[in-house]
Amino acid sequence: MQNFVFENPTKIIFGKDQIKKIGKEVGKFGGKVLMVYGQGSIKKNGVYDQVVASLREAGIAVVEFPGVKSNPVLSYALQGIEIAKKEKVEVVLAVGGGSVMDTAKTIAAGAQTDDDVWDYFMYKKAVQGALPILTVVTISASASEMNQAAVITREDSAQKYSFMSPFVRPKTSILDPTVLFSLSPAYSAYSAVDAIAHMLEPYFVNTEPNSSLQDRLVEGLVKTVLESTEAILKDPADYDARANMMWAAILGFNGTTTAGMGRVGLPVHMMEHSLSALYDIPHGAGLSILLPGWMRYVLETYPAKFARLARKLFDIEEKDDRKAGAAGVAQLREWFASIGAPVCLGEANIPGGDVEKIAQNASALAELWGLTDYNEEVIASILTTCA
Amino acid sequence: MQNFVFENPTKIIFGKDQIKKIGKEVGKFGGKVLMVYGQGSIKKNGVYDQVVASLREAGIAVVEFPGVKSNPVLSYALQGIEIAKKEKVEVVLAVGGGSVMDTAKTIAAGAQTDDDVWDYFMYKKAVQGALPILTVVTISASASEMNQAAVITREDSAQKYSFMSPFVRPKTSILDPTVLFSLSPAYSAYSAVDAIAHMLEPYFVNTEPNSSLQDRLVEGLVKTVLESTEAILKDPADYDARANMMWAAILGFNGTTTAGMGRVGLPVHMMEHSLSALYDIPHGAGLSILLPGWMRYVLETYPAKFARLARKLFDIEEKDDRKAGAAGVAQLREWFASIGAPVCLGEANIPGGDVEKIAQNASALAELWGLTDYNEEVIASILTTCA
Repeated sequence: MQNFVFENPTKIIFGKDQIKKIGKEVGKFGGKVLMVYGQGSIKKNGVYDQVVASLREAGIAVVEFPGVKSNPVLSYALQGIEIAKKEKVEVVLAVGGGSVMDTAKTIAAGAQTDDDVWDYFMYKKAVQGALPILTVVTISASASEMNQAAVITREDSAQKYSFMSPFVRPKTSILDPTVLFSLSPAYSAYSAVDAIAHMLEPYFVNTEPNSSLQDRLVEGLVKTVLESTEAILKDPADYDARANMMWAAILGFNGTTTAGMGRVGLPVHMMEHSLSALYDIPHGAGLSILLPGWMRYVLETYPAKFARLARKLFDIEEKDDRKAGAAGVAQLREWFASIGAPVCLGEANIPGGDVEKIAQNASALAELWGLTDYNEEVIASILTTCA
Repeated sequence: MQNFVFENPTKIIFGKDQIKKIGKEVGKFGGKVLMVYGQGSIKKNGVYDQVVASLREAGIAVVEFPGVKSNPVLSYALQGIEIAKKEKVEVVLAVGGGSVMDTAKTIAAGAQTDDDVWDYFMYKKAVQGALPILTVVTISASASEMNQAAVITREDSAQKYSFMSPFVRPKTSILDPTVLFSLSPAYSAYSAVDAIAHMLEPYFVNTEPNSSLQDRLVEGLVKTVLESTEAILKDPADYDARANMMWAAILGFNGTTTAGMGRVGLPVHMMEHSLSALYDIPHGAGLSILLPGWMRYVLETYPAKFARLARKLFDIEEKDDRKAGAAGVAQLREWFASIGAPVCLGEANIPGGDVEKIAQNASALAELWGLTDYNEEVIASILTTCA
C-alpha cells in the first residue's frame, strides 16, 4: 500500500424521484445558477422539466446554457465562461453526462479568473478556485459527478486534454436510474466500456505490487458492469441493472479503487482521446477499439494478473497464466462486440492508414501525462493491432 | 438498489510518516485542542511524542485528557465534556482506537450544549452540533475514524449504547500502519473480528434483494481481512498486511458497502454490547463468540447467500446450499479460534447460566434499534448455542 490522501466530499443523492431535490441543493450555494445541458434529450425524457420546476420552487434564478455536444469543445466552454461572468451566476449546474459535466467544470473554473483556462489542461497553471458545481446525471460512465477531472477538446489543434482539481469536484450530484431507461443501446454499451476502462487501466498501470485489496474491488465492480449491461440490453428499463451500473461507474472512478495504488496511469484513455479529437467518435467507442489491443500489448508484462482477471471475470479454467490471460482478453473483446461496441478502427470508419497521424497526436498527450513508456512508435504498434 | 444519500467528507491521510501532519490539520479548525487518549500505549510506541511535537510546531495549545479505557464509559466522557467546556477548547483530537474515538465524539457533541448527552444514545434527542474532531488511529477496526457513530457504556445501568450524527464524523483522520506493529496478537485478532462483523451483519440483514454489487465489495474486503490477519499473526510488522487491514476496516464500515442496501441491521453488535456492558470483555472477543452462533440461526433464512459466502471465502465446493453455508459458518468459527479469538461464552469466563440476564439486557437495545425480530426469547436461544 502506497501512502495516499483520500478526500471525496461530494454528496450523492441516489434513486427514484430524487431530481426534485436539486433546487434545494443548489440554493445552499447561491441564488443564480448557470444550467448547462446538451442537445435536447433532457427535454424529451422529462428531466428538464423536473429540474426547472425544482429550481423555480426554490426561488433560483436560472440562466440556461444548452447545446453542449459530446466530445465537448473548448470554444463552447469559453462561451459559457463569458455568460457566467456577464450574468454573475453563483452556481453552475450540469444536467447531462460526462460532456456536460466536464463543460460545466471548465466554465466553473474559468468564471472567477482571467486565466486562459486552456493553461489548466496543458498543466501550465493550477486551478485556484471555481464556482460551486452540482450535477443531475443523465448518462453514467465518466464518474465526473464524483471526481475532480474535466476533459475538453480544443478543436483548432485537435487536442482532447484534461485537468484535475478539487475545486471542480461537484458539491452534490443527483442520480436517478430511471433517467437512463431512455438511453440508447449504443450509449449504454459505450458507458459500460468507459467504466470498465477506468478500472482496468489502473488495475494494470500502478506502482503498488501488493494491491490485492484494490484488485478485489475492481474485479467485483467490473463483474457488476458486465452483468448489468447484459441485463440493460435485454430490458432498458431494468431498474436494478441501471442503478448498479450507475453506482459501479462512480465507485470505479471516484478514487476508492485506486487509493493506495501509487501512481496510476490511463494509457488507453490517452490514446482514445486522439480518436475522439481527430474523428469525433464517442469516447466509449474509441475505448472498446483500443482496450483489447492495449491489453494484448501489456499481457506479457503481467501474465499472472491477466490470468487472475480472466478467471474472476470469465471463469476461465486454463492453468497456464499467459494462455488464460490471452483468453480473457479475447473474451472481453468478444463481449464488447456482443454489446454492439466497435472492436477495430475500421468499424468506426477510421482508416488503418491514419495510424501514424493518430500516434503523433497521442504521443503529445502521453508526454504531458508522464506516460513515458508510450512514445509514438509504441502507440503506433498498439494501434496497428486494433486496425 | 434502494434510494440512498452518500456523503462522507472525512479526509484520510494514510501511510508511513504521516502523523507529523496532525498539527497543521488541527490548526485548520482551531488553536486549542483537547487531546483524548487511552491508558498509555501511545507513550510506549512513540505516537504520543509525534503528535505532541506536531501540535507544538503548529502552535496549538494542548489540553490532555488521557485515561480512556476500552469499553469506554459515560462518566468519563462527562468529565471530558466538563474539561472541554472549562478550557474552551476549539477542537477535539482522538489519539487511539475505537474507544478513544468514541469518547472524543461524545465529548465533542457535549461540549457546546447543556443537553444530557445520554439522551443522544437513547435516541431521545438528536445532536445539534459538535466541536470539530480529528483522529490519529492506533487500532483499526471500528472505522470510527471515517463514520458518524459513537458507542459508550453507561456503567450504572450496564447499557452499551450508540448514537450516529454527521456532526461527529471526523474532519481528518491520520492512519499510519506502522503504529499497528506493536498491537498485540489478541487485539489484532479482535480487530479482524470486528471488521468482519461490520460487513457480514448488513450483508445478511438489509432490505434490498438485489445487492450483488455491495455483496461483491463485502466479499472482497472480508477476504482481505482474513488474509491480512493471517499475515499479521505471522509477522506483526508486515506493513502491507497492516495497511490492508487498516483500509479494509474503514471501507467496510464507512457507508460504501451499505449504500443502496436500504435498512441494515447489526444484531450481533446489539447482543455483543450486552457482553461488553455486563462483563467488560473486549468488543471483538464478544463478537467472535456470537457471530458464528447468530449465523447458524439465520442460515435457514438465507441458505443461498450463505452458500455464496462460503464458496467465495473458503472455496467450499459442496453443491447443496444449506450444507455449503453451514460449512462456511463452521470454517469461520474455526478461523476465529485459530487466530486466538474466543468462540464460546465459557472461553470469556461468562457463565452459561447468565443467558437470561444477557438476553434481558440485549432485548432493550434490540427494541431501541428497531431489531423487532429479536425479542428476549430469540436472543436467549441464540446465546444458548454460543455457550
